[in-house]
Amino acid sequence: MTAQIVLDEYLATCQEACAGEMRQLFPPDEPGPSGLFDLILDYPLRGGKALRPTLSIAACLGLGGRLEAVLPTAATLELYHNAFLIHDDIEDESLLRRGRPALHVDHGIPIAINVGDAMMALSLQPLLDNVERVGLGPALRILRAVAAMTRRTVEGQAVELDWVRRNTWQLDDADYLAMVERKTSWYSFITPLQVGAMAAGADAAHLAPLEPLGRHLGAAFQITDDLLNLRADPEDYGKEIGGDLWEGKRTVMLLHALRHAAPADRQRAWQILARRRPDPDAGAALGDLLDALATSGDLTPAGRSEILGHLRGHGRAEVKALDDVRWLHDLLHRTGSLDHARTVAARQAEAAAAALAALDWFPASRHRDVLAGLVDYVHERTR
Amino acid sequence: MTAQIVLDEYLATCQEACAGEMRQLFPPDEPGPSGLFDLILDYPLRGGKALRPTLSIAACLGLGGRLEAVLPTAATLELYHNAFLIHDDIEDESLLRRGRPALHVDHGIPIAINVGDAMMALSLQPLLDNVERVGLGPALRILRAVAAMTRRTVEGQAVELDWVRRNTWQLDDADYLAMVERKTSWYSFITPLQVGAMAAGADAAHLAPLEPLGRHLGAAFQITDDLLNLRADPEDYGKEIGGDLWEGKRTVMLLHALRHAAPADRQRAWQILARRRPDPDAGAALGDLLDALATSGDLTPAGRSEILGHLRGHGRAEVKALDDVRWLHDLLHRTGSLDHARTVAARQAEAAAAALAALDWFPASRHRDVLAGLVDYVHERTR
Repeated sequence: MTAQIVLDEYLATCQEACAGEMRQLFPPDEPGPSGLFDLILDYPLRGGKALRPTLSIAACLGLGGRLEAVLPTAATLELYHNAFLIHDDIEDESLLRRGRPALHVDHGIPIAINVGDAMMALSLQPLLDNVERVGLGPALRILRAVAAMTRRTVEGQAVELDWVRRNTWQLDDADYLAMVERKTSWYSFITPLQVGAMAAGADAAHLAPLEPLGRHLGAAFQITDDLLNLRADPEDYGKEIGGDLWEGKRTVMLLHALRHAAPADRQRAWQILARRRPDPDAGAALGDLLDALATSGDLTPAGRSEILGHLRGHGRAEVKALDDVRWLHDLLHRTGSLDHARTVAARQAEAAAAALAALDWFPASRHRDVLAGLVDYVHERTR
Repeated sequence: MTAQIVLDEYLATCQEACAGEMRQLFPPDEPGPSGLFDLILDYPLRGGKALRPTLSIAACLGLGGRLEAVLPTAATLELYHNAFLIHDDIEDESLLRRGRPALHVDHGIPIAINVGDAMMALSLQPLLDNVERVGLGPALRILRAVAAMTRRTVEGQAVELDWVRRNTWQLDDADYLAMVERKTSWYSFITPLQVGAMAAGADAAHLAPLEPLGRHLGAAFQITDDLLNLRADPEDYGKEIGGDLWEGKRTVMLLHALRHAAPADRQRAWQILARRRPDPDAGAALGDLLDALATSGDLTPAGRSEILGHLRGHGRAEVKALDDVRWLHDLLHRTGSLDHARTVAARQAEAAAAALAALDWFPASRHRDVLAGLVDYVHERTR
């Protein structure tokens, strides 16, 4: 078997174990009040890569721990991850998640907010049950790690939302990396690795060196994710294509392009980025209706533009057009920003590999091989 | 001093102590990333009644505990309460909170969702620090109580949101009371009382009898709150007046009115309640604009109604009018539903008083007097 197949099988096994654990936490035959359990399991069972549970499981088993000791904690982190995704999708106005409508598109924003809250609320009990499972010391260490993790995640999210709100664009790679460390690396990489080690009974001296491994893995992962968003085919990738450009997401390549564009191009890019993405609700159909009314003589051209101007004026700036987004995409290429981002991602992956190599107390095993395989995977993946 | 003044002073002292504790948790001179701490403190420092911290403090001190033992936990519950309020205000499309714009009105839905998440995330650390403060046993009991509390709250919220989504109206007092117990009583009354007792070192035998006290207090409180929403003056009360009717909130009086209305009235009420509240964004101003265009000849009457129909068709049913809400208000009076609700609230307050009287192991003290005063307060208050 090739290394890739071994890694894929390990990921699939972890995903299955984690999905089984979640089904036990939220039994489908006891759907909870008003189908809450079904809604909680919706995103997790859409078949993500189970990267976070796999990191926890590989760290735990690789350090001599048992699967049962880590599985509920791994499932809990996956629950947090999916809760963040649900709230992110509302905050970013994303319409799709893993190739299907986002939860708030299917069930409305109120229910989607509450399902995310429920997933966070229901994460505490399995972590408290760790006292019986792994002993008091490790259980408290895991709880403290999760408390610090969620704090950092919401802080990172606050930084990013504040950039959006203030229309902040003069940011460099260091700003981006600091935000991603808080928003993504802690909950997706550092904490999963550390709680896996804690469940195996690792002491503080062995926890600290897992932090740089997770930090660099997280950065390499996120930059690669952002690159995939730009180039992927709808068939290949379950998010909206170029959704990041429509949304105006701060990425290594977009920030690089703004720093390296000619002044006139930078000006034009800022103008485009200040525009909102079109509102799917009151979007194209309304324009078509107004055009039809204008053609039939029910509406004068002046009246048409007054209505459109009025609607746009309601708290929303001008709307991005497809040509705007195409022009931005072109700018990224002209400024060599994709290559720059690939270089930054590769450097982060190298730093992660070096951090893993430095863990001389982590015994050679297939679990360690999986961690090494994941270092390559996160920045070489194509989907 | 009258009993009312004593109670008011006790509430004010608890509010001050709790606000001080929160300012220590989120120091204004370290505003956190992107002003997150300021946003976290926004609702808590708008000056609520501090009912929840007062219940915790009175239970703890009344059972011989120290203020320092309970204060961080009391502040944490107040934090949860305000996080729920922020998310509730988005979910219910409320515009005002304590007489000022709701957080999502001031800062947008994305930031408001994240601030609520942050408050929940940051609640875990002070509860973990309880281990050093009150000892391991009580700290773990408090954590378990909070885990159960948050689960019940999101379950209650899920039930209510599901009623809204499915346009469910055939509900009786028992349905309402079961929802309120989950959504309100646990986090606002039962758990505050119980964690106060836990911080004083109370054992399991003393925790169980606090549950009926909190349950009935919660029901009396919520029904009174719903009654105030109907009758209060803008000057007296920091919420939108009659906001519950615009929102179509299930209350004891509205459900009673639907059960006791003449068939034709019930039919009309259902039709009104199926309508949305007006969207503040695209509301009156657009109607005025279309009228002006129609008058100037830029728009035919047929075109005008097509545009309005189109906008309303975008996922939103017809919109409630002021006359609709006035008619509903009148229906509540005609069916004697306000009197019915007052009777149910009084019965719940009596049950709470009986539950308190049964606590013969809870020593007589001014703390116990405060609990007795709160039983009267929650259903006799006028604001």
